[in-house]
Amino acid sequence: MIDPTPLVKKFLLHLPPPSLRDNTAEIDRLKKQLMGFGGLEHLTVPLAEIPRWVSILRKTDYRVTATVSLAAYAPQLIEVEPGDARANLFGLAVDLGTTRIAFQLWDLHQGVLIGEIDRPNPQVCFGPDILTRIQVAENPEGLRELRDGVVEEINRALAFLSGEHSLSSQDIYALTLAGNTTMVHLFLGLDPSTIRREPYIPLINSLDPLSARELGLNLHPLGTVVIFPNVGSYLGGDLISGIGFSRLRDQEALSLLVDVGTNAEVVLGNSQWLVGCAGAAGPALEGGVARMGMAAGNGAIEQVRIDPKTKQLTYKLIGPGPPAGICGSGLIDLVAEMFLADLIDIQGKFNLNIPSERWTRVEDRPAYLLVTAEETLNGRLLVFSQVDLDILLRSKAAMYTILTTLVQSVGFGLSDIERFYIAGAFGNHIDPERAITIGLLPDLPRERFIPLGNASLKGAAELLLDRRRLDEMKTIARTITYLEMNVNQDFMNRFSAARFIPHTDPTLFPSVQRKR
Amino acid sequence: MIDPTPLVKKFLLHLPPPSLRDNTAEIDRLKKQLMGFGGLEHLTVPLAEIPRWVSILRKTDYRVTATVSLAAYAPQLIEVEPGDARANLFGLAVDLGTTRIAFQLWDLHQGVLIGEIDRPNPQVCFGPDILTRIQVAENPEGLRELRDGVVEEINRALAFLSGEHSLSSQDIYALTLAGNTTMVHLFLGLDPSTIRREPYIPLINSLDPLSARELGLNLHPLGTVVIFPNVGSYLGGDLISGIGFSRLRDQEALSLLVDVGTNAEVVLGNSQWLVGCAGAAGPALEGGVARMGMAAGNGAIEQVRIDPKTKQLTYKLIGPGPPAGICGSGLIDLVAEMFLADLIDIQGKFNLNIPSERWTRVEDRPAYLLVTAEETLNGRLLVFSQVDLDILLRSKAAMYTILTTLVQSVGFGLSDIERFYIAGAFGNHIDPERAITIGLLPDLPRERFIPLGNASLKGAAELLLDRRRLDEMKTIARTITYLEMNVNQDFMNRFSAARFIPHTDPTLFPSVQRKR
Repeated sequence: MIDPTPLVKKFLLHLPPPSLRDNTAEIDRLKKQLMGFGGLEHLTVPLAEIPRWVSILRKTDYRVTATVSLAAYAPQLIEVEPGDARANLFGLAVDLGTTRIAFQLWDLHQGVLIGEIDRPNPQVCFGPDILTRIQVAENPEGLRELRDGVVEEINRALAFLSGEHSLSSQDIYALTLAGNTTMVHLFLGLDPSTIRREPYIPLINSLDPLSARELGLNLHPLGTVVIFPNVGSYLGGDLISGIGFSRLRDQEALSLLVDVGTNAEVVLGNSQWLVGCAGAAGPALEGGVARMGMAAGNGAIEQVRIDPKTKQLTYKLIGPGPPAGICGSGLIDLVAEMFLADLIDIQGKFNLNIPSERWTRVEDRPAYLLVTAEETLNGRLLVFSQVDLDILLRSKAAMYTILTTLVQSVGFGLSDIERFYIAGAFGNHIDPERAITIGLLPDLPRERFIPLGNASLKGAAELLLDRRRLDEMKTIARTITYLEMNVNQDFMNRFSAARFIPHTDPTLFPSVQRKR
Repeated sequence: MIDPTPLVKKFLLHLPPPSLRDNTAEIDRLKKQLMGFGGLEHLTVPLAEIPRWVSILRKTDYRVTATVSLAAYAPQLIEVEPGDARANLFGLAVDLGTTRIAFQLWDLHQGVLIGEIDRPNPQVCFGPDILTRIQVAENPEGLRELRDGVVEEINRALAFLSGEHSLSSQDIYALTLAGNTTMVHLFLGLDPSTIRREPYIPLINSLDPLSARELGLNLHPLGTVVIFPNVGSYLGGDLISGIGFSRLRDQEALSLLVDVGTNAEVVLGNSQWLVGCAGAAGPALEGGVARMGMAAGNGAIEQVRIDPKTKQLTYKLIGPGPPAGICGSGLIDLVAEMFLADLIDIQGKFNLNIPSERWTRVEDRPAYLLVTAEETLNGRLLVFSQVDLDILLRSKAAMYTILTTLVQSVGFGLSDIERFYIAGAFGNHIDPERAITIGLLPDLPRERFIPLGNASLKGAAELLLDRRRLDEMKTIARTITYLEMNVNQDFMNRFSAARFIPHTDPTLFPSVQRKR
């Protein structure tokens, strides 16, 4: 197999020096040798760089490294450097989430991941959810601030990652970004207001490759920025990227992919067809619950066990500790274990009749103590309140309702799903067993669940490394039929039923029934 | 036959309005309908214009005119206007000569020429010839001034022509420009200094389409600017344009095209092959002789007759008069007629022994009076001095020497040329009979001479009207073998012989011999 070609590529050139017998112009001489590598017939050269590049050619005796972006329909020459600079070729993959932004820095020469970080989306200070931010963006000043916040955060990540790995951010020649439709609009400074108003029309779905310079990003100024296309107002490029990463389209089997984020985006299909829909699930499943939630990272409680008899609680942290909060998968574990230990009833209320030393009160409401103030990182109690529980249950109910609505709308049942991909920041950590217990995921044979982790980020990284994913990305976007989730009485009835644990209809969750 | 497609094209669109059943994004909706016209699959859309265009879509109930540039490998959306604006589609063709700049404004919707002007190249004040200007450009400040001068002149022409024809310069969406290699470098602000130093290497020959905005040109900011490619330092895009216009490549017969300008550019070939070369001829043949020369235009003497017996002189003007100067074709006529009337001898000296009332002196040197001060436009004498004659004879000798050198270098003789195309600003006016008399053109059967006029300008205009000429333009540039004119002793000997009238070897010009 031929090695995949990254989105940007470097070529070592040694041009024949000019002579009376070969008086090809300097840049044409360079282009001519590049043509020899194939596929570069329509190479474009930016006028403004020509004097600098010609001077490099002449100074180096025509031994240079040329960097070409292969992202657009016509390849573009984006840098000429003295000598052999092929080793310095990096790319950044970005998953631009509503709540968090995740980054991976890749060495595109060697094809290896060299750094990874995850940051809160600074827009959170304007509002936790998409709708609030769209409101902020209705004011041009607000739109600019939202835009600048994300651009600056990406620039901080670029500076941090390149600093940490002792490389020049000028050697980062490509950036791929996947986000939901609103996040992409805000990142580009495009007014997203029609996204939240019927008939929910974005300004643009399919974007041409852009240059880092025009977006104000501090990688190489002519570095290529590729943004995954959106499908609808609530079905974004993050899902397109995740579908690509899952290889869902390579299979005959009926598969479902759910991207669990602040929005729940779901796609169902196989190699023949794809249908998708999306709805707000809230930030709870990403660990975005106000009091003690956090993203999966150092100090996060990711696993909880409660002995049904003694009600004794144990937990597992990510990293060495001390505990700092609880992430999405930890929360699901917590609720599932509390439910199985009778500490939470089927209606989602704390069962205060069951004695436990952990019952406490916060702001005069019942709460469950997870970690005492002495044990935590910041000296504050880690408690789980009825309010937190209500939020989580709304999120899980929304998720389950969206899943069932989509699957039923195309004439299938949940049990027909042969592969169930779970994407999202916490997809790696989620325990399907406990997610089923609380009724977040349907009660399918466990081997059908395939956690993908942050599939949006991973799909973006794949695109950095293999430009053929560009076509796949466009095919996916073109193939998906977007189903507008009609929040009618029927939907609301299903949602209400799904707010129970695991559900008002226990026969939907036979394995959970057997446990109690 | 399908009508040719211009370089930029307008499409009238009436998009289905957004609805819950069709929630395609605004710009994607527009792209989708454009795709229906075919050939626009890879259409790019500039990010910065999206908000404005979407707002036009919404305000006009989705009835708009979209303007697409078809110049680059990927077509580009460059404007969206309310309603039906198809009629407002104009383009400017520019022949950027060393001495003069010629412009044609075309209505690309109707395919008709609507205005034409011709201006001195403002760079002339820095020096009449290419070499002087290259020296000026070695200083970055000088380069900028040379660049700005031409850009401003083009902007003045844009303002003048659009004003004169009551159209908005914003409706000019395309500009094609043909010029010699140095002129193009200066226009783009590229240092041309290596053009005049062995091995004579330009910075770039083949240019990508540019936007008017990046060049500072006041047509539509996203209007497409296409510059004809150069072949060598002394074989420019003006010749490529002229070859295209001549259809030389469509024929089996051996043809020669000479573009008579400040530089003489010559190409020989047929449908199978092309060889070209170039050399300095000086501005004399364009009417650029200091004292009384002018471009072919109102008030220019374009034809001269002298009765060989009475020595009586008559002339014909372009336009109604009064006389303002003499253009290139008038000068050739003048010298030919003076020679046939014995007023100039075979060595190119005034024959003061032949009595004529027109002999006079200027700055203490012999001169020949053409028009008295009372009769001229500006009240100054029109005289032709020995200095003027010497300059003209050097130019014609250079031209003839270049012609013979090229033809002989590929094993042919001048008499093998079956079609002899004469391009250049004065190509329409030149009288081959008299050009042969002075030895500027070879003594071939007269019907072989085909005057093309300003073929460079006409080729540029054809490209505006028919984008398929883009491929032809690239094919020509790729096909030509450029022969560096080696100014050795052999060349100098030929040049000295050609300074005589018509030549030291009269057997080369039998028809001239018969006249005397």
